[in-house]
Amino acid sequence: MAASAFLPELGTQVVVPVAAVVGIAFAVLQWVLVSKVKLTPEPRRGDGSSGKSGAGASEYLIEEEEGLNEHNVVVKCAEIQNAISEGATSFLFTEYKYVGLFMGIFAVLIFLFLGSVESFSTKSQPCHYSQGKMCKPALANAIFSTVAFVLGAVTSLVSGFLGMKIATYANARTTLEATKGVGKAFITAFRSGAVMGFLLAASGLFVLYIAINLFGIYYGDDWEGLYEAITGYGLGGSSMALFGRVGGGIYTKAADVGADLVGKVERNIPEDDPRNPAVIADNVGDNVGDIAGMGSDLFGSYAESSCAALVVASISSFGINHEFTPMLYPLLISSVGIIACLITTLFATDFFEIKAVDEIEPALKKQLIISTAVMTVGIALVSWLGLPYTFTIYNFGVQKTVYNWQLFLCVAVGLWAGLVIGFVTEYYTSNAYSPVQDVADSCRTGAATNVIFGLALGYKSVIIPIFAIAFSIFLSFSLAAMYGVAVAALGMLSTIATGLAIDAYGPISDNAGGIAEMAGMSHRIREITDALDAAGNTTAAIGKGFAIGSAALVSLALFGAFVSRAAISTVDVLSPKVFIGLIVGAMLPYWFSAMTMKSVGSAALKMVEEVRRQFNTIPGIMEGTTKPDYATCVKISTDASIKEMMPPGALVMLTPLIVGILFGVETLSGVLAGALVSGVQIAISASNTGGAWDNAKKYIEAGASEHARTLGPKGSDPHKAAVIGDTIGDPLKDTSGPSLNILIKLMAVESLVFAPFFSTHGGILFKWL
Amino acid sequence: MAASAFLPELGTQVVVPVAAVVGIAFAVLQWVLVSKVKLTPEPRRGDGSSGKSGAGASEYLIEEEEGLNEHNVVVKCAEIQNAISEGATSFLFTEYKYVGLFMGIFAVLIFLFLGSVESFSTKSQPCHYSQGKMCKPALANAIFSTVAFVLGAVTSLVSGFLGMKIATYANARTTLEATKGVGKAFITAFRSGAVMGFLLAASGLFVLYIAINLFGIYYGDDWEGLYEAITGYGLGGSSMALFGRVGGGIYTKAADVGADLVGKVERNIPEDDPRNPAVIADNVGDNVGDIAGMGSDLFGSYAESSCAALVVASISSFGINHEFTPMLYPLLISSVGIIACLITTLFATDFFEIKAVDEIEPALKKQLIISTAVMTVGIALVSWLGLPYTFTIYNFGVQKTVYNWQLFLCVAVGLWAGLVIGFVTEYYTSNAYSPVQDVADSCRTGAATNVIFGLALGYKSVIIPIFAIAFSIFLSFSLAAMYGVAVAALGMLSTIATGLAIDAYGPISDNAGGIAEMAGMSHRIREITDALDAAGNTTAAIGKGFAIGSAALVSLALFGAFVSRAAISTVDVLSPKVFIGLIVGAMLPYWFSAMTMKSVGSAALKMVEEVRRQFNTIPGIMEGTTKPDYATCVKISTDASIKEMMPPGALVMLTPLIVGILFGVETLSGVLAGALVSGVQIAISASNTGGAWDNAKKYIEAGASEHARTLGPKGSDPHKAAVIGDTIGDPLKDTSGPSLNILIKLMAVESLVFAPFFSTHGGILFKWL
Repeated sequence: MAASAFLPELGTQVVVPVAAVVGIAFAVLQWVLVSKVKLTPEPRRGDGSSGKSGAGASEYLIEEEEGLNEHNVVVKCAEIQNAISEGATSFLFTEYKYVGLFMGIFAVLIFLFLGSVESFSTKSQPCHYSQGKMCKPALANAIFSTVAFVLGAVTSLVSGFLGMKIATYANARTTLEATKGVGKAFITAFRSGAVMGFLLAASGLFVLYIAINLFGIYYGDDWEGLYEAITGYGLGGSSMALFGRVGGGIYTKAADVGADLVGKVERNIPEDDPRNPAVIADNVGDNVGDIAGMGSDLFGSYAESSCAALVVASISSFGINHEFTPMLYPLLISSVGIIACLITTLFATDFFEIKAVDEIEPALKKQLIISTAVMTVGIALVSWLGLPYTFTIYNFGVQKTVYNWQLFLCVAVGLWAGLVIGFVTEYYTSNAYSPVQDVADSCRTGAATNVIFGLALGYKSVIIPIFAIAFSIFLSFSLAAMYGVAVAALGMLSTIATGLAIDAYGPISDNAGGIAEMAGMSHRIREITDALDAAGNTTAAIGKGFAIGSAALVSLALFGAFVSRAAISTVDVLSPKVFIGLIVGAMLPYWFSAMTMKSVGSAALKMVEEVRRQFNTIPGIMEGTTKPDYATCVKISTDASIKEMMPPGALVMLTPLIVGILFGVETLSGVLAGALVSGVQIAISASNTGGAWDNAKKYIEAGASEHARTLGPKGSDPHKAAVIGDTIGDPLKDTSGPSLNILIKLMAVESLVFAPFFSTHGGILFKWL
Repeated sequence: MAASAFLPELGTQVVVPVAAVVGIAFAVLQWVLVSKVKLTPEPRRGDGSSGKSGAGASEYLIEEEEGLNEHNVVVKCAEIQNAISEGATSFLFTEYKYVGLFMGIFAVLIFLFLGSVESFSTKSQPCHYSQGKMCKPALANAIFSTVAFVLGAVTSLVSGFLGMKIATYANARTTLEATKGVGKAFITAFRSGAVMGFLLAASGLFVLYIAINLFGIYYGDDWEGLYEAITGYGLGGSSMALFGRVGGGIYTKAADVGADLVGKVERNIPEDDPRNPAVIADNVGDNVGDIAGMGSDLFGSYAESSCAALVVASISSFGINHEFTPMLYPLLISSVGIIACLITTLFATDFFEIKAVDEIEPALKKQLIISTAVMTVGIALVSWLGLPYTFTIYNFGVQKTVYNWQLFLCVAVGLWAGLVIGFVTEYYTSNAYSPVQDVADSCRTGAATNVIFGLALGYKSVIIPIFAIAFSIFLSFSLAAMYGVAVAALGMLSTIATGLAIDAYGPISDNAGGIAEMAGMSHRIREITDALDAAGNTTAAIGKGFAIGSAALVSLALFGAFVSRAAISTVDVLSPKVFIGLIVGAMLPYWFSAMTMKSVGSAALKMVEEVRRQFNTIPGIMEGTTKPDYATCVKISTDASIKEMMPPGALVMLTPLIVGILFGVETLSGVLAGALVSGVQIAISASNTGGAWDNAKKYIEAGASEHARTLGPKGSDPHKAAVIGDTIGDPLKDTSGPSLNILIKLMAVESLVFAPFFSTHGGILFKWL
């Protein structure tokens, strides 16, 4: 080996936790700033509180005009916020009961399966990769993997919980700030999103760092064993994403579709009308699906790609030669990522101020560009300081020589591919461009042509992202084998704090709009919240594209780590065992999507029944004299989502176990590869088709152009056709599409964790034959 | 090697051509029988013509009642038939112009690419697989591959042409026979279908047999070169399928959707109304898409699987030891298949007679079961007589010992997997079972839920077929490597004559119904033709399932042959070159589907404009006093389909060339595998989703059960929702879904033919880097 890294071990031991703590502190600061907006009615102000924020007389005027400070509007906002917050908390606590059960069972499984690899022996074993050395027994791996699993799961849960808390805390505050102008409202929503983003990124890094150091006390210089055990962290994070993404996805769309089918269609009342019994459930759903779900999904990717990189690094020269700083290169990237995102956030909240409605979307897009640019410098820095000039990476049985600048390219290509995917997604789902406008235009000839064009758009939108992913894979794979792919994934996820901030911003604004509507606030304020929301829709689509892209890279990295750990040196398509795995794996996303789509349908039907029941049996709801029973609707969505996520959840969790045990690691490799290459396509096309339909409808409703006006107004035949497309797109873009990320990642990380068991005891069917 | 096959070479030289000639003779016989139904009005009968067929007095009564023999009804039928026949012929001749151009260019390409492998040298070269022997020069391969390509293309064209001729010849005759009762009409339609089926199967076999013998005169004992050249036959057949399936698919749906959008929706006139200017184009479309398209697709599969099997056999012990009978085992299977189908046909036309409407569907299903059962015996016989007890098969670099009973299992598993796929398809697309009924039920809550449930149904319907395909692949692949997969495909296709007969029966009945409507025949006759048509719908879905299943097996076999010929010994997913191929390959079906779906949309819009123009500018159309200008609509569909098939056609034809030349054979292997495993899923789900929507609509319209009646009648809200689903399903099930067969097969066979060129000159991008 040539010279070692510039950054000494001590430096790394300082940089990583400090970056994590800074991230957490920044999140807390944002929270504090948001909490300055008071949700309790004040007696009377003018005591300098408006001077503090530098707001001029014009804002005062709005408030006066709206009569906002009237006691009861603020009270109403607080009340609604409370109901949403309670609903969200009740969902989470119900979910936790099942999560607890699941975690318990799965922890036992992990322990038993991994412990049985060497029959629960407590004796040390010769290492696999470090010749002549002794490694800790498989039993230790079993114990520590289980602990890591629990840690990953708990970190994901806590971050998700806090994210939901701040989101449901911020929604009404955004509404109130909207009375002071668009800039204020934007900053409140964005800051709240940032709380979620930084909390998740920083705590994920922090816990991982602590775990590595604590586990290290036992493992000593058996790094091979240490980082094998750490993979449990990825599994823990990712399996929570199953609940978050799939359960949350079913929840949100069951509530949404259920509320709309009775409210809009049967009773002819507007969206977010407080008379609709499902309205709180619908607003809870935004938080559950888009905040907790997206958060847990990205947290899972982040934990998984770190683990995949670490496990490969541990059997490369970093691990074998015990070079601490390069070994923790993945964590250094995340650390720098937090700082880069912190700088980026200031551009949105402090350096510039939004003054008009049409500045919102560019401001959000700028966040993506700035974070990517800043992070590119950050990566260069880390690669220069944190890596030796040259080193070797484990490449399926052989060691491959790699240079630090090559690793820089790997991380950077992932980062930039993410940006490309983001912009392509925007092109295909924003109604500022021709694809969505064409779909809107096809509504002229009815819903059928709308659906045909929408499906075709989704299919087409897959092309460039796949080329971007393929290019990043090719480059990173060629330069640094599976380690390269893992750090490319990490590169794409390095700006996760900003990505999540943008993403969480959407549902917060959506909720803010809902609260404004329910509290009976004026049209003018709704216009501001609508504008915030519309920008959030586009960025939500970008966030999804991003989540899928990173999921693809992460899965491949996990796949590579699995293959390395299962000691397979080729996955040959020309072997029948592998090929049947490939074709069955490619089928799994279809099976899974069929389940999740039907789940939404069934759950929505239950909601429809309850809403109808309330309208029919509780007198005075339609007149607004009696409050509907929101809690029952929240409970129905909660219960249905938990129940309905069982079959798809079982498919994801059991497939690797069944295939691994019965057919062995080769077939399992095929299944993982097949599910990956097929799932990523459906996920992208489903998300974009749904996003395009949503925005085609909004395009007609907004009527902002000559063309759009020929299709509208609301209630016209083309608009009706567009509404049908939008409803079809709901489960596609918010449930079945994004859930596929979980399918491909979770199967891969589960295979990775159980790899030692499968390669020892798996494939019993072929052994019998 | 142990003992050789029982059947001597001379026996094979007799059996194959005799079976082919018997098949052709049988087809001619069926044609003659159909032609007995006269389409020219007779002065008066009762001269024993009814006694001949044993029809009783009751049939007479129907005729009297309907007043059928009235001169003008028969004349009208003849007139309409003539228009359809002319339209179909005009489409074909327009198509041929482009086909001719394409064939010319592609033939030159084949010649140049393959000739350049050894720089057009005329010197013999050492063989690749038969050590120490000399083989013919690459130039010979170039010449004979080109000739084989042209032969395959012409055989496909001629069979398709004759099939269309008989179909458009038989449609009006079926209408007329319907006046004599359901049994007569059924037999007429079925016999006409059989003409197509037997003609195609037998001529395909015959030309292949002749080509092998003629090429053999030059090649002598260089079997390796001989069967390499023969693969051009598969490419020829398959590239015509591109025109047939993709062009035909666009044609039929452009006409259908265009006719419906103006006729049904705007003008409120029923389907098949003679006042609709697009009505003839619509009826032509049935023939173009479902007869010529399906025929060329299956012919392509058949030619390809034979070629794939032959090319592998030529480098196995059969080829190396020059054992003629086992070498021609694939052709022997097809020969026996023709005889088995011949026996099966008699069950439909002679052994039993259909007396009631509800006997039609069981009779058609019985055809599938009988042919499979008879063929199983046939395969056993061929495997016993035509193969030595043990032999070796080339398996990616090594020879693998195989027993004759193992090969029997390979063929049989393909055959039976086809039946399983057929029945699963029926379960998911027939309205006799709960899946379609559930979809129909979901129409209660509108078009959106109908679409969601329909998509979910399609996704779900993929599961069992994929397991069936995976099982056949695993068994045949494990037993006899890629040769096993090729003969499994051949097994699935061995009953092609019956499959095509059933398939062609559908559009013939559909046309018969259209003619009855246009000729203004009574409701009673329409009921009979509707029943014939309804049964045809279900079998059409089965036929599609079957076509896709066989396409999957064929593609894999071709892929295996390509890999063998390109001298690759592993296709390792863990190589970046292969992996990027895999993920991009998995994307291609989406790209392709996006293109074909948009093509249908654009072509349909052109049709809509023309139909509107005619209604608006030609006075008297709506009153029925002036005949609309059918020919212009036919021309529009024809031109649009040719024009619109160019981009997807270019994607299919150019991808292997570009990937092979720029990235080389490894990436190309990945692309082929990815396209295969991903394409087969979309193809199955698209076909079944479309079929289910179609039949859900029919279920509501027919109102045959208590449940169905609660959803109907025609014009109710659920029915309107069902119509939307049906319209969306049209391009899915008849254009984009089945076209994917072509994508995966054609790319594979093209790669196979160009393999020597790619492995010599390909991968220039990687060579530069």
